[in-house]
Amino acid sequence: MSRKVSVYRTAHFNAAHRLNVPQWTDEQNKAFFGLCNNSNYHGHNYDLQVCVVGEVDEVSGYLIDMKQLKVYIDEEVIEAFDHKNLNLDVPEFSELNPTAENIVWVIWKKLRNRLEDRFELSVRLYETPRNFVEFNGK
Amino acid sequence: MSRKVSVYRTAHFNAAHRLNVPQWTDEQNKAFFGLCNNSNYHGHNYDLQVCVVGEVDEVSGYLIDMKQLKVYIDEEVIEAFDHKNLNLDVPEFSELNPTAENIVWVIWKKLRNRLEDRFELSVRLYETPRNFVEFNGK
Amino acid sequence: MSRKVSVYRTAHFNAAHRLNVPQWTDEQNKAFFGLCNNSNYHGHNYDLQVCVVGEVDEVSGYLIDMKQLKVYIDEEVIEAFDHKNLNLDVPEFSELNPTAENIVWVIWKKLRNRLEDRFELSVRLYETPRNFVEFNGK
Amino acid sequence: MSRKVSVYRTAHFNAAHRLNVPQWTDEQNKAFFGLCNNSNYHGHNYDLQVCVVGEVDEVSGYLIDMKQLKVYIDEEVIEAFDHKNLNLDVPEFSELNPTAENIVWVIWKKLRNRLEDRFELSVRLYETPRNFVEFNGK
Amino acid sequence: MSRKVSVYRTAHFNAAHRLNVPQWTDEQNKAFFGLCNNSNYHGHNYDLQVCVVGEVDEVSGYLIDMKQLKVYIDEEVIEAFDHKNLNLDVPEFSELNPTAENIVWVIWKKLRNRLEDRFELSVRLYETPRNFVEFNGK
Amino acid sequence: MSRKVSVYRTAHFNAAHRLNVPQWTDEQNKAFFGLCNNSNYHGHNYDLQVCVVGEVDEVSGYLIDMKQLKVYIDEEVIEAFDHKNLNLDVPEFSELNPTAENIVWVIWKKLRNRLEDRFELSVRLYETPRNFVEFNGK
Repeated sequence: MSRKVSVYRTAHFNAAHRLNVPQWTDEQNKAFFGLCNNSNYHGHNYDLQVCVVGEVDEVSGYLIDMKQLKVYIDEEVIEAFDHKNLNLDVPEFSELNPTAENIVWVIWKKLRNRLEDRFELSVRLYETPRNFVEFNGK
Repeated sequence: MSRKVSVYRTAHFNAAHRLNVPQWTDEQNKAFFGLCNNSNYHGHNYDLQVCVVGEVDEVSGYLIDMKQLKVYIDEEVIEAFDHKNLNLDVPEFSELNPTAENIVWVIWKKLRNRLEDRFELSVRLYETPRNFVEFNGK
Repeated sequence: MSRKVSVYRTAHFNAAHRLNVPQWTDEQNKAFFGLCNNSNYHGHNYDLQVCVVGEVDEVSGYLIDMKQLKVYIDEEVIEAFDHKNLNLDVPEFSELNPTAENIVWVIWKKLRNRLEDRFELSVRLYETPRNFVEFNGK
Repeated sequence: MSRKVSVYRTAHFNAAHRLNVPQWTDEQNKAFFGLCNNSNYHGHNYDLQVCVVGEVDEVSGYLIDMKQLKVYIDEEVIEAFDHKNLNLDVPEFSELNPTAENIVWVIWKKLRNRLEDRFELSVRLYETPRNFVEFNGK
Repeated sequence: MSRKVSVYRTAHFNAAHRLNVPQWTDEQNKAFFGLCNNSNYHGHNYDLQVCVVGEVDEVSGYLIDMKQLKVYIDEEVIEAFDHKNLNLDVPEFSELNPTAENIVWVIWKKLRNRLEDRFELSVRLYETPRNFVEFNGK
Repeated sequence: MSRKVSVYRTAHFNAAHRLNVPQWTDEQNKAFFGLCNNSNYHGHNYDLQVCVVGEVDEVSGYLIDMKQLKVYIDEEVIEAFDHKNLNLDVPEFSELNPTAENIVWVIWKKLRNRLEDRFELSVRLYETPRNFVEFNGK
């Protein structure tokens, strides 16, 4: 029998952002993004759920050392995004609109680079408890 | 790389219902459904989680406009079910037993009709925080 | 130093109800209670938080035996209210409008009768996660 | 017996802010407020819990009409704060540092003005699920 | 159209455990498992989410009788694990390190034995709200 | 007007314990504490809510520096209790039965020693989401 298991670790950060497409006019942006286009920014407590999938090590009983996974999340996400303005302080969003869909994509790529190939990776990002997104690279 | 993402939106409604199969006798219904068969009804705060899957629009960074998705949910689910008696007030359950399995199926079909074909749809319904169901049309 | 401590125990039940004042006309009731006046009933998952306050027993380190408190809650609240129609199945609400304010009052009185005088009692009732009430007899 | 009851209603808004005392130097602000002093702002999903205390109306069984309370909260808090930059967009914080302690004070005063004198008012504000404050005017 | 639905039921138990691989030295175990290797044990409130997948019965509108599923969970998991020391009191872990990955595997196998073949089974186990695992036998 | 505010900070730790009164016989302990008396211990994820009350500083807009409060909680509670066996590893419980009522009392005393006299202190401890206690020294 397979011992393929999914292991989840959560984290959180808070940040300011605004939704804005530079190639659109102000009127287009305001019409499309509404309150989220506020030029003075608004913000969120983002909750992150990182899911790593793979075969359990039969000796240790671990899929991955959670302490090591926490280091990857801290270095790639928390230090880069927490208490930041995503549009102004985070290089990945200098040209990319920081929608939840784009933020989760950026986080997935950053964590994918740190994980061994034998692991699958899925990331869920809660912008609020009522709106959230998930990306798994497929 | 694919930009296929899942976007989730939550909503809630509360309603009365009873579980009852018309073609069974009262004794059969009582034996099978227990307290849930109470002829005077009981009720729940239903929490709904709607998941839409598809390719992100590269310009806007949106999968779907959440304000539009909220309109679909409000019109198809909240206006039809909130503060209602599912058995008596909702035509879909005049003949269909309003189990969580059947309610989530009805909601899925109503929302599926409103969404473009390029989207996949999955719906999760919490009858209580301890009992919930999910349907994705597959 | 005092060892006065508050001990909390939660429980939950679900029930149907409608808000209606018998001495008012249908129009008055509908205008005042809106959707909550639906003559076919709606329902909720009610979450209950019972708080007992008093001096800790220095030998056992207990304020009150939680297993005993659970028995009181089960007998007075869960057996009487769970999977019931509050208006039709619960005698206390045959004349009393089952608002959250009135339900918490009824629960407080039922539990107060079971507790020794040396305990203070406070009861919180969540009608939804967004609307809740608290009564402490003062 | 008294029928004094506490009724709670929740709401939420999200906003950007930074913590900064204008009469301090940048070095003092940075040393005191740390990451929260980021000049580009950060943000939160704020959860609000409004508690109104008073005597239940014996006829209706209501303390206060929740629909009316919701209107007060929407007009005084949600329209004024949601998707805003508290420092730049909300006049009350043009001179006042938008700490959670100060935000809850401002909200309390705005709601106090809308409520009849017979009600007591207490407001709890969650800046994150881990940090929150409460103010009751006493 | 398929009527394949997922039905979820939650449960909880609390237990003590320590992480330790018998064939490793104390130094290896301490270095690998850190605080979780404490020879005097530590503990958790485990939250369990059992997911059963299959075709809905068109007459009853049920996938599976939740009361029956609850009996399986109570007998196989709660009676065996609740208020226990997993290492000392639960035979399955006398040789197997009680990591979350291994606990969820043991629970899945115990429940799989009780369910008819027409059902698929997936089990999620929360060791804390921040760390959880999922196993579906695939 | 007073600016007296309550500021809350949460933390969590997990630990093993057993309930046992040394001066009682094994039979008495087993009869009184039931499953909680298991001689091999069981465990919990404890959630802590620390509430500090006092006058807000009008210049900074802070009641207390949360970073400093976090240091007190980490040093007094998390380092002392997390991933520990309360009965065996924590000196305060070598003679004192580690009921929730006694644990919250010990935590309150440890934190009270670190706080200035101008602050009031209240501590809430969740043993599970369903059972919790609160102590404020009064």
